[in-house]
Amino acid sequence: MDINKRVRQLRSLMQEYGWDAVVVSGTDPHNSEYLPERWQQRKWISGFTGSYGTVVITDTHAGLWTDTRYFIQARLELEGTEFEIHPLRVPQAVDYPRWLADNMPPGAVVGIDGGCMSFREVQALQEALIPLHGSVDNKNDLLNTLWTDRPALPVTPVFVLEKEYSGLDAKDKLEGLRETIGRAGCTHILLNGLDQIAWLFNIRSHDIPYNPVAISYALIGTEEATFFTTPGKINADVKQALNTRGIGTAPYASLAQALQELPKDSVIMADGNTLNYSTFTQLSAHLGLENIRDIPSPVILKKAIKNPIEINGFRKAFLSDGIAMERFFFWLETELEAGKTLTEQDASKKLSWIRSLSENAMGDSFQYISAYGPNAALPHYSHGTKAGSLLEKKGLYLIDSGGQYVSGTTDITRTIPLGPVSQTEREDYTIALKGMVALSTAVFLAGTKGTHLDMLAREPLWKHFRNYGHGTGHGIGHFLCVHEGPQDIRMTWKDQDLLPGMLTSNEPGLYREGSHGVRHENILLCNVLKENEFGQWLGFETMTLCHIDTSPLLPALLDSSEIVWLNAYNRHVFDTLSPFLTFTESAWLKQKTAPLPVP
Amino acid sequence: MDINKRVRQLRSLMQEYGWDAVVVSGTDPHNSEYLPERWQQRKWISGFTGSYGTVVITDTHAGLWTDTRYFIQARLELEGTEFEIHPLRVPQAVDYPRWLADNMPPGAVVGIDGGCMSFREVQALQEALIPLHGSVDNKNDLLNTLWTDRPALPVTPVFVLEKEYSGLDAKDKLEGLRETIGRAGCTHILLNGLDQIAWLFNIRSHDIPYNPVAISYALIGTEEATFFTTPGKINADVKQALNTRGIGTAPYASLAQALQELPKDSVIMADGNTLNYSTFTQLSAHLGLENIRDIPSPVILKKAIKNPIEINGFRKAFLSDGIAMERFFFWLETELEAGKTLTEQDASKKLSWIRSLSENAMGDSFQYISAYGPNAALPHYSHGTKAGSLLEKKGLYLIDSGGQYVSGTTDITRTIPLGPVSQTEREDYTIALKGMVALSTAVFLAGTKGTHLDMLAREPLWKHFRNYGHGTGHGIGHFLCVHEGPQDIRMTWKDQDLLPGMLTSNEPGLYREGSHGVRHENILLCNVLKENEFGQWLGFETMTLCHIDTSPLLPALLDSSEIVWLNAYNRHVFDTLSPFLTFTESAWLKQKTAPLPVP
Repeated sequence: MDINKRVRQLRSLMQEYGWDAVVVSGTDPHNSEYLPERWQQRKWISGFTGSYGTVVITDTHAGLWTDTRYFIQARLELEGTEFEIHPLRVPQAVDYPRWLADNMPPGAVVGIDGGCMSFREVQALQEALIPLHGSVDNKNDLLNTLWTDRPALPVTPVFVLEKEYSGLDAKDKLEGLRETIGRAGCTHILLNGLDQIAWLFNIRSHDIPYNPVAISYALIGTEEATFFTTPGKINADVKQALNTRGIGTAPYASLAQALQELPKDSVIMADGNTLNYSTFTQLSAHLGLENIRDIPSPVILKKAIKNPIEINGFRKAFLSDGIAMERFFFWLETELEAGKTLTEQDASKKLSWIRSLSENAMGDSFQYISAYGPNAALPHYSHGTKAGSLLEKKGLYLIDSGGQYVSGTTDITRTIPLGPVSQTEREDYTIALKGMVALSTAVFLAGTKGTHLDMLAREPLWKHFRNYGHGTGHGIGHFLCVHEGPQDIRMTWKDQDLLPGMLTSNEPGLYREGSHGVRHENILLCNVLKENEFGQWLGFETMTLCHIDTSPLLPALLDSSEIVWLNAYNRHVFDTLSPFLTFTESAWLKQKTAPLPVP
Repeated sequence: MDINKRVRQLRSLMQEYGWDAVVVSGTDPHNSEYLPERWQQRKWISGFTGSYGTVVITDTHAGLWTDTRYFIQARLELEGTEFEIHPLRVPQAVDYPRWLADNMPPGAVVGIDGGCMSFREVQALQEALIPLHGSVDNKNDLLNTLWTDRPALPVTPVFVLEKEYSGLDAKDKLEGLRETIGRAGCTHILLNGLDQIAWLFNIRSHDIPYNPVAISYALIGTEEATFFTTPGKINADVKQALNTRGIGTAPYASLAQALQELPKDSVIMADGNTLNYSTFTQLSAHLGLENIRDIPSPVILKKAIKNPIEINGFRKAFLSDGIAMERFFFWLETELEAGKTLTEQDASKKLSWIRSLSENAMGDSFQYISAYGPNAALPHYSHGTKAGSLLEKKGLYLIDSGGQYVSGTTDITRTIPLGPVSQTEREDYTIALKGMVALSTAVFLAGTKGTHLDMLAREPLWKHFRNYGHGTGHGIGHFLCVHEGPQDIRMTWKDQDLLPGMLTSNEPGLYREGSHGVRHENILLCNVLKENEFGQWLGFETMTLCHIDTSPLLPALLDSSEIVWLNAYNRHVFDTLSPFLTFTESAWLKQKTAPLPVP
């Protein structure tokens, strides 16, 4: 593909429209993390495939704004084009609205595809342009005339997630949601988050890689609920199941019309953080801005607090996932011992295949990070469609992977030695594990935020003057997106309590550029431990089932309480998984989970 | 005093002015924590002497808004009056602006003394009144006509803090400040914080109990600097010393005129969080709101980062303070053993007297908390002007005290057994100490906030399902206020890094209503530990010098690293202090600091 030609074509279009600049965003109408091909506009115009980045093109400049995770990848992918990288999340970073404000002439007009940018993002852009009396010009699908072979949206079947998995009928979820929006003085809520809609209606689909969702909107009023999606996605049975629960269906493309037909006295809840600018401004033009409650969708929090049946389903998913992980590690060790030549890609393909054989398996939950040696120093490394590095019989190998199961979603990272490891590798392996144990065993009062807990995972590393440059934890969906909010565990402040029923990852790491990387990742369930005069006390239960290799550890760096935790965890893994393993696998796992002596 | 009569008189005044309500605040034009008698308006109208509280009076209601710390005290002090307590910092708390909004008629007029309320506080009140189209009516010194024997402001001498203590000439401080305000596009800065002015001009005075400050304002322009204070406070030498440094003097009461004479093109920095409403609105009327930079005063941060000479001075102050503390504890133990009858007041008076004998002693830094048995369960207990409880030869005694020294300010809490202690007392004593040790030994990356660090002090307590309901740490002034910002260590978010040179308290506790209280408090200095590929690493040095009693400890609850820290600390205390103690005191301290066996 000729990126430079595409940029030239876009500049002609800019001239035609009278634009001084155009913004091409990396997201879609639903503010998704993973996108169908049709909405990968930023990739089409620039060639950059990372999950985070925005392109801005002017007459004389083509820029990509992305963050530290993607500097190396962007440099490689943008080679031979005129694109320059603008680094974000670094000191003195200049974001693209600021850059436009600094570089555009007075009265500048910036073209956008407001269908694929959130209302909030466009607001920020508009505010930045105020000093130069600039404005945005919104043209939905502005690339269509250039992108002649632009793919259509995917049309995969919608299926119902039965109550034995969802734990709560869609009818009951709708009732709860109506109460919530009623209390906020609203008559309607418009949902555009694909995982929110899938959760609310208890449906799933396969429109997006890794995320079992349907491209859709949902409009819920006091009496009616409508699921806007491509008609070909819904068969008669699904339609019937939805109708029984009071959910009507309508074509995806008919949302605009439906919004236009809302009674003028409607008060609608719409989340400007994620809802696209075009739809948001259509709503405000029709109802008036004062009749939009622009607040985070309440579905985000409802979805994050898993019910007992979902939690039980997660247990099954983690069991299946643990079996797959142990089989994979047994295979890997056996193959390498037999002298087989294996690449990073061989390993990730094998693991994906083993997972696919699990009960209720529904595919991978994200693109695996299968990273050997120095590659593991990049927390978001991918061998892409290539074979990647050869796995040698020395050093550390890191694999961050996860599966979709009908009863839950998994995400796990293990780092294992493929042979002799260096002293620094041992130290980093041991010290990162201390962080994981500290968070796993945290006890905290109701009201504690992820920002508070983050410190517990870091302090053991900080005591050794080491740190990792990413967050410690993210929420995880129930047979939905592997990353979900509202909670997370990271240094930056977020005013969201950790609540009983939330599942959150626990993934401290240590990375040495050019040498190696370590990350240990489990999924934690937040539980109530007890109540007393001081308040309600919460803690975590580790849901992930896969042994932690003790051979790279430096036991002298571990407290006895940490060794006790590790021995108990490995024993629990063995006891739970061994009945499902072959005799050979089980004997191997017995060895792998042999307890360390407690000093 | 007849509180009810005063309330009746105020109601007559309200009628005269046509007010529906009047707010009597608990602070002064300088947003001080400690006030001279003249500004103790809230105490005059209600009888409540706590440090935090606001009175609102309407035709039919008299209310005091205060927080958990003062519920018991307020109940006692308001007995026999018509005042009702409105609790703050509790779930579903209704603050007084909200209460007025809920209870006042449309168009209500609320009288205030805007000279004694911050601009920010009045803003919040005005916003709350918007829905009922209410307004505030500002009358400075509105109580004057009723409070016929209202005391005048104190007039104590101003003295210069020499460079051997301040470490930086006022001229250089002014130069630095002018650079800062210039970068922010300002021509002037108006300072109303008394400790900020004292720090900036290197002066001290004794206008306020415990706080060695002068009641004053400071107006700094690009060329000139003016110190507004009562002329009788400044003798010829001080005036000369100030003039030499480019600081002019003017009467306290002439500030308003000076502000009125500011050139119309002035851009002034003024901190609406602390500057009183009357002065702030005078400024905005004269210069226009757009020419006021309403941001936190940069002096707050400059003052918090101590220079090497200040730090050295603190070391001397902590040495003097440690000697005084050890002498006090020796005296207390000896007296009790001799069968003397002692009250809480006897103990606090004795400690204050011993402190006053120290080198460079300049009085107490706050009203001591001398609390025996159940009294110690109130974190802000005071025996007031009464004798308080008798000290018996059993249970725990808590003393939270501090001194002013020319070279620094101290604040220390120790809890000691006066005889046999219960199992719960031992547990609480030991567990609270674990929290103190955890924070003392913290290692953290530059950029870490107090909110992050707070968790380190709490987690050891939380592991035992115990907590304390106050913050863990506050900044401390250099021969200034015992509480200062901008940094603190508490759960609530504050976007302020802990920086090298800051001094912050470390004071975890455990409180059991009706039984006992434990608190351990040291002052920590933030230092750079090292730099490496991960960033700049910071840590704390404990400045406080006074042994921690090991006899109530349950060593089984301590990790060996905690015992190692405690032994090293106590040994350091003995080694540093014993040369300054008598032979008997030293032998006693040797025993008190005998190391615990390390398991």
